[in-house]
Amino acid sequence: MTFELTDYLPYDFANRRHIGPSPSEMAEMLAAVGADSLDTLIDRVVPSEIRQEKPLAWGKALSEREMLFRMRRVAEKNQVLTSLIGQGYYDTVTPPAIQRNILENPAWYTAYTPYQPEIAQGRLEALLNFQTMVSDLTGLAVANASLLDEATAAAEAMTMAHRLAKSKATAFFVDHHCHPQNIALVRTRAEPLGIEVIVGDPFADLDASAVFGALFQYPGTLGHVDDFSAPVAALHEAGAIACMAADPLALALLKSPGEMGADIAVGSTQRFGVPMGFGGPHAAYMATKDEYKRAMPGRIVGVSIDARGNRAYRLALQTREQHIRREKATSNVCTAQALPAVLASMYAVFHGPEGIKAIAQRIHRKTVRLAKGLERLGYTVEPAVFFDTITVDVGAVQGVVLEAARREGVNLRKIGSTRIGISLDERTRPDTLEAVWRAFGGDFRDADMTPEYRLPSAMLRDSAYLEHPIFHMNRAESEMTRYMRRLADRDLALDRAMIPLGSCTMKLNATAEMMPITWREFSDIHPYVPEDQVAGYRELIADLSAKLCQITGYDAISMQPNSGAQGEYAGLLTIRAYHRARGEGHRDICLIPTSAHGTNPASAVMAGMKVVVVKAADNGDIDVDDFRAKAEAHSANLAACMVTYPSTHGVFERTVRDICDITHEHGGQVYLDGANLNALVGLARPGDIGSDVSHLNLHKTFCIPHGGGGPGMGPIGLKSHLEPYLPGRPETGDAGAVSAANWGSASILPISWAYCLMMGGEGLTQATKVAILSANYIAKRLAGAYDILYHSPEGYVAHECIVDTRPLSQTAWVTVDDIAKRLMDCGFHAPTMSWPVPGTLMIEPTESETKAEIDRFITAMLAIREEARDIEEGRIDKDNNPLKHAPHTVEDLVGEWDRPYSREQACFPPGAFRVDKYWPPVNRVDNVHGDRHLICSCPPVENYAEAAE
Amino acid sequence: MTFELTDYLPYDFANRRHIGPSPSEMAEMLAAVGADSLDTLIDRVVPSEIRQEKPLAWGKALSEREMLFRMRRVAEKNQVLTSLIGQGYYDTVTPPAIQRNILENPAWYTAYTPYQPEIAQGRLEALLNFQTMVSDLTGLAVANASLLDEATAAAEAMTMAHRLAKSKATAFFVDHHCHPQNIALVRTRAEPLGIEVIVGDPFADLDASAVFGALFQYPGTLGHVDDFSAPVAALHEAGAIACMAADPLALALLKSPGEMGADIAVGSTQRFGVPMGFGGPHAAYMATKDEYKRAMPGRIVGVSIDARGNRAYRLALQTREQHIRREKATSNVCTAQALPAVLASMYAVFHGPEGIKAIAQRIHRKTVRLAKGLERLGYTVEPAVFFDTITVDVGAVQGVVLEAARREGVNLRKIGSTRIGISLDERTRPDTLEAVWRAFGGDFRDADMTPEYRLPSAMLRDSAYLEHPIFHMNRAESEMTRYMRRLADRDLALDRAMIPLGSCTMKLNATAEMMPITWREFSDIHPYVPEDQVAGYRELIADLSAKLCQITGYDAISMQPNSGAQGEYAGLLTIRAYHRARGEGHRDICLIPTSAHGTNPASAVMAGMKVVVVKAADNGDIDVDDFRAKAEAHSANLAACMVTYPSTHGVFERTVRDICDITHEHGGQVYLDGANLNALVGLARPGDIGSDVSHLNLHKTFCIPHGGGGPGMGPIGLKSHLEPYLPGRPETGDAGAVSAANWGSASILPISWAYCLMMGGEGLTQATKVAILSANYIAKRLAGAYDILYHSPEGYVAHECIVDTRPLSQTAWVTVDDIAKRLMDCGFHAPTMSWPVPGTLMIEPTESETKAEIDRFITAMLAIREEARDIEEGRIDKDNNPLKHAPHTVEDLVGEWDRPYSREQACFPPGAFRVDKYWPPVNRVDNVHGDRHLICSCPPVENYAEAAE
Repeated sequence: MTFELTDYLPYDFANRRHIGPSPSEMAEMLAAVGADSLDTLIDRVVPSEIRQEKPLAWGKALSEREMLFRMRRVAEKNQVLTSLIGQGYYDTVTPPAIQRNILENPAWYTAYTPYQPEIAQGRLEALLNFQTMVSDLTGLAVANASLLDEATAAAEAMTMAHRLAKSKATAFFVDHHCHPQNIALVRTRAEPLGIEVIVGDPFADLDASAVFGALFQYPGTLGHVDDFSAPVAALHEAGAIACMAADPLALALLKSPGEMGADIAVGSTQRFGVPMGFGGPHAAYMATKDEYKRAMPGRIVGVSIDARGNRAYRLALQTREQHIRREKATSNVCTAQALPAVLASMYAVFHGPEGIKAIAQRIHRKTVRLAKGLERLGYTVEPAVFFDTITVDVGAVQGVVLEAARREGVNLRKIGSTRIGISLDERTRPDTLEAVWRAFGGDFRDADMTPEYRLPSAMLRDSAYLEHPIFHMNRAESEMTRYMRRLADRDLALDRAMIPLGSCTMKLNATAEMMPITWREFSDIHPYVPEDQVAGYRELIADLSAKLCQITGYDAISMQPNSGAQGEYAGLLTIRAYHRARGEGHRDICLIPTSAHGTNPASAVMAGMKVVVVKAADNGDIDVDDFRAKAEAHSANLAACMVTYPSTHGVFERTVRDICDITHEHGGQVYLDGANLNALVGLARPGDIGSDVSHLNLHKTFCIPHGGGGPGMGPIGLKSHLEPYLPGRPETGDAGAVSAANWGSASILPISWAYCLMMGGEGLTQATKVAILSANYIAKRLAGAYDILYHSPEGYVAHECIVDTRPLSQTAWVTVDDIAKRLMDCGFHAPTMSWPVPGTLMIEPTESETKAEIDRFITAMLAIREEARDIEEGRIDKDNNPLKHAPHTVEDLVGEWDRPYSREQACFPPGAFRVDKYWPPVNRVDNVHGDRHLICSCPPVENYAEAAE
Repeated sequence: MTFELTDYLPYDFANRRHIGPSPSEMAEMLAAVGADSLDTLIDRVVPSEIRQEKPLAWGKALSEREMLFRMRRVAEKNQVLTSLIGQGYYDTVTPPAIQRNILENPAWYTAYTPYQPEIAQGRLEALLNFQTMVSDLTGLAVANASLLDEATAAAEAMTMAHRLAKSKATAFFVDHHCHPQNIALVRTRAEPLGIEVIVGDPFADLDASAVFGALFQYPGTLGHVDDFSAPVAALHEAGAIACMAADPLALALLKSPGEMGADIAVGSTQRFGVPMGFGGPHAAYMATKDEYKRAMPGRIVGVSIDARGNRAYRLALQTREQHIRREKATSNVCTAQALPAVLASMYAVFHGPEGIKAIAQRIHRKTVRLAKGLERLGYTVEPAVFFDTITVDVGAVQGVVLEAARREGVNLRKIGSTRIGISLDERTRPDTLEAVWRAFGGDFRDADMTPEYRLPSAMLRDSAYLEHPIFHMNRAESEMTRYMRRLADRDLALDRAMIPLGSCTMKLNATAEMMPITWREFSDIHPYVPEDQVAGYRELIADLSAKLCQITGYDAISMQPNSGAQGEYAGLLTIRAYHRARGEGHRDICLIPTSAHGTNPASAVMAGMKVVVVKAADNGDIDVDDFRAKAEAHSANLAACMVTYPSTHGVFERTVRDICDITHEHGGQVYLDGANLNALVGLARPGDIGSDVSHLNLHKTFCIPHGGGGPGMGPIGLKSHLEPYLPGRPETGDAGAVSAANWGSASILPISWAYCLMMGGEGLTQATKVAILSANYIAKRLAGAYDILYHSPEGYVAHECIVDTRPLSQTAWVTVDDIAKRLMDCGFHAPTMSWPVPGTLMIEPTESETKAEIDRFITAMLAIREEARDIEEGRIDKDNNPLKHAPHTVEDLVGEWDRPYSREQACFPPGAFRVDKYWPPVNRVDNVHGDRHLICSCPPVENYAEAAE
């Protein structure tokens, strides 16, 4: 036999798909950075004192097929019953064209947040559609581009009301008919801020003069459809703010919150075509009156013009700047649910107002038929008028009926010990109604029930909505498909080029990882089903948690936080609770270095802490002396410190253990921000280094795609002493929960689990090493042309590097913005701009990019440097050159050309593809014309300092 | 209550998605054609004498969700066992990235055949990759871009050998180890051509001097791996041609057919990532020596240059012209399996040679382990050396073992009454091996078997393959995804614009229809499983057949033909068999009008008939007098006539019943070509008009997407008197079958069934009416600017219209080609060019396009007419104008501009999108540089006439 017995093992398989550089490419990269092996490099870069002792290990890595095989077995352990539980979550039909062309299309799901508007016009348009839809349905002038979930939005509404109210009261009223999870999150949020929450009947218990605001649910959680005009008027009379949580589908038939005078509306757009997914992700909405728009949290898409005066969309972030600010910081929202929001907006585009109205009517008529059947059986159906939800008091047989329904394949809602709630939806079929009747002891045919309406006549909506032409384009599927394709084509996502963002790890989102999330066993599960129906989810979550514990060195994980910032907030709440439980509730000082991400101090403030800022040394590291001094100064009240490791400067600081030790010495707890975990997995563990709690960005390190700006997933890992203080169950209505669903956006967890299974511990570790190699390779190649800010004493960076472009603004009048826009001409998304240092670019290539693609990027960056040199050396005008006019569009080519450089140079700079060139659809977006207060990342941490000092 | 009770019914739902024009658009279109209602128009267009009496009816149309619900129930009736049956079909892993980004991506599956190369560069590159892969693996110089299935390819190889052989023998030898379906199709094909088929052992029974060629199977159907060098040499010695059917995966390890001297190789690329799908679709391949390339059937992609001298791909069709010719016509191949071929080629790109080799090695080692286990149990494993297939003679317990295996979830192959065949594949897991051992009475662990090779050392391959860089690009998934995206972006498919092809109905391929085909219950089924495992398929096929019978007025359907041309062939074979059974085997004359599609006469020749061409009258209709005269002249020998209805001129001829009657009077049978069924469904039925048999293009009328040039599906419908002569079962090895699998490409049948379910009879009828409306609207709007050839006496066309562009070649030197290329600048695929009349464009808008899109097309066409007028009236040079330089590319814009028209005019002609413009990746492809004998559709039928007259 001449055969060699070498094999193409599954491990090589997954590894080779996820890790970009081939073995020969890696050899070239190592040569460039001057290391003879990957391990040599890692030994030089990662301080030996923090290296973990044992390698990650959980058996052999699985091939794609074996992973899917295992995933299928786990999925089949979930029982997919028809859930009529309601309470904010409803079955819905995702139109197949939208599922395939958006949810399952990497052009949509791999995109980054649209901070670079010129290459994000497609999803900006889709999000503008979302805002328009929300604004129309709620009857309020301005809507944002989504929030994390309805309960979080309700809590945000409360704090927004707090900021806006003329009333000096410190209490907030909450309708007893609010969904329990909304009440829970309002309570969680209120407590550290010193807000009293009063739950009661708005028509009996509301003393408007005693509150700064109130939240009503519409329709109520038991089905009531009440007119809140009177309580709203009373609140306004008292200088208080009226908030409503409203079901957007009900608003297709019912008078809008705006028409009742509400100031703020929130809600979930889940039932606009986004599967329940055992809790998420879904897009919550928030809308408000025009006068309050600047106080609204979250992202808002705005309309502006480009350099040619053509219409262009962009994020208008002034409101965000407003709410994350100094002593009044009351929100840490810095993301959205972009992909679910796009799905919901497309659902509205697909159906149009007539379609949405017809769907709502159908659901209502089904609910009436259901009620009539139950009435025939002698039950009293509550309330008398309703949209899609009814409640029946069955007394002692509650359990019997619920169980009978489950045997029929239907989950109903248990309310208290005698009542049962039933909510119908777009999917409810006649046989489902018949099954419910059987569970209640009846034997009717749906066809025998006559149609009827039981909506309160006085509250029927007569105002129009979705009048914009986009909701009236012909609804032929051909046109719909082409519309989605055109929008996708305008954007630049990972499916066309690397996105070298330092602030966000934009690695491969493998298709095999994405496939399970649309399996019905994961997507068609209501978040509040009995636990015995989700054995598959529980197994998946337990195993993923165990792996994350092994990776981080923590003892427990909570999957509840559905963004990184929510993870910070949740983690700090556990620290707060820990201190309070030990009788040290006075501890409220949080030390945060200047280099921290802006959400850190915002989260700390939300958790009732005061921020003390720690200086950076000249090399960018935390100034340990300053840290020690501040810890000592605040020793009695030290609650926590927040550090990012490796630092946001992209360096493995040698002093991280010192920071942890100092904090502990003074009675504080260490929060290690997990944003840069991609540089640690398999090499070092936060729990070993001395940290007590961290959030993990599953949407960065663990392959959940960025979705064009969400969903994210920010579970927290923590040491055992903090475990008793993990977030509570949201559906109870008690304080403690931080998301509307107990496992957050559970339906995207299969992505991270699949990644761990396919990589294995060894593969994950290799990924970390290659990520570090790639960053050092870029730093090495760009050094000379650009200054690389911050590195270890040995000259190495971690998994990202910061390129200083400020000198060019002095010598060539070239700004970091010019470079970012010029990179678009080369077919690249810019690195992170001006963060953490203004005037710089932070580059993170990740392990998934090939050397070929990294070299293409380096080529582009070096060519840009030469273009700046042409300005420096007077070969081209400082105001009329390719950098200033970037990005170049087809319009530039077609029109008159009077520039001192050629069309060829304009459009095909080094690095750009020729045949396959990506063309930005607009020229540079005019920020002056648009929002005068544009900011592209959370503001510098210094702004928060005054509050504590 | 102020509510109206109108509803948004499921019927409206499906209808509105599939039918493009909205009600208000339809009203405008009706006004333009001068009809006050759709029914008025239809009454004027469709002759009353052919209108069907009863409307189509099979219950209420289903919504997308209800259809998927029903489809799911049907799918679950299929049992998905692990099939180790082999016999040419094997489980395989479709890489998820390829599944999502190609198979489930409308940019790939909705594309048309790449006859317009400038807007098809992406799939042309993918198909060129396919050809390269086949050529490398087979060791033969030239490969085509796929054939329908291996068995068809084997039959094509035989006829090709017949054309090429120096030997004058009339017999063809077939290896007894060929797969039975290959033997069956060779026999079917041979009989009408007068070829004798000899089946035997190549090493014992082959008398090379007695045959013009031979076919060997490699590896053999029982697993043998034989060196055919000696028989091949003997054949060559005798002037005969050596053909081999070879498994391409085995060729990764074994000496290639080329190395053994074979002249022609055929095979199936199914196991390169394409699911078994109960029989298809899959891409068969054919490769041959350079000297024989002009005799090869099927499409070949070739490399040429564009007007700028840049590389460009195109179809090189001279070989096709060669084989469909006059008296020697022996193939009617006019399609390919483009989408499956692209999938297979991407599988090779994804894995590269090392990966393919490793997969083959793994399968082989698993097979050795399997064999060792069986040997331990005392069985004799045949053959001694093998690749992936072994055979065991178990004697009388055959049934017991097969049943035991099925209970273990495994299908094995029943061979004769005592033997069992087992073929392993990429998916075979250790527990599958263990299950097989248990079925044979053993209890082993796979892990206990030591690895080993049992390939014949002398036949191990040492020649390289897949050496081209495309198979060595870094296999990181990021890069792979981007490669597929780049190719997709180069092409223009239905997901971006209408494709107004008269020769092919390019209607909506709805996403909901596409979803089921990748469900494992449809895709993971071997074509030869026991019938009780495919109750779902049987129900689906029975119901679809019943609906098609209702639509066509026929009594029976065979789903076996997997292209329209194969349907013609199959239909004519039933006519042939019918005459023979009645003792009228001498009837061999087939009357075919001049306007017939070129496949008609080719199929007739293949079915042993002689073609007599019937003239057209001046108005394009069949000349009934000539038809009658020819029928009378050939009355004694009249076998059949072939007519297309409505005619290929796009007109409902009033004389169609006369044609049928005349044919029947003279003892002939009527074959009505179903290509234009889109103009009949719900309005008229071929069976009522007088036809005896038709094929139905499920890939045109019934929504199976065109796939960029296949798969197609051409089932035949026929009257009960022909039913006994339907195609036989291929797996028996007997003559009579026309495809390798009994239900053809069964896995795409759910598409057509879903379409019928969602439209309902009423919706289908409405679709037909709107298709006719849209065609008449276009004809009306373009009349004046262009001459519309052919229409009814009342001035109406059917579902398509022919625009005469010949006058422009006289007045403005503008050819039909110039117009087609200029349409690309407007973002359109050209209509069918020069068929059925040279120098014309045949336009079919279908019912799925909105008026808005149709108007965009009309705008483009009218603007082109004005551009021609500029030439006519001397305002622009006849050789230097936008029409002659079309299509325009980015390269044109970037470079020097010295043309007498502006860049603006060049790139943004009326009709073109501005922001979302589609850019052809190459300029006009140079046909002179490429193939001098390019032809873009089957040649005119006149070429066939001499054979009979």
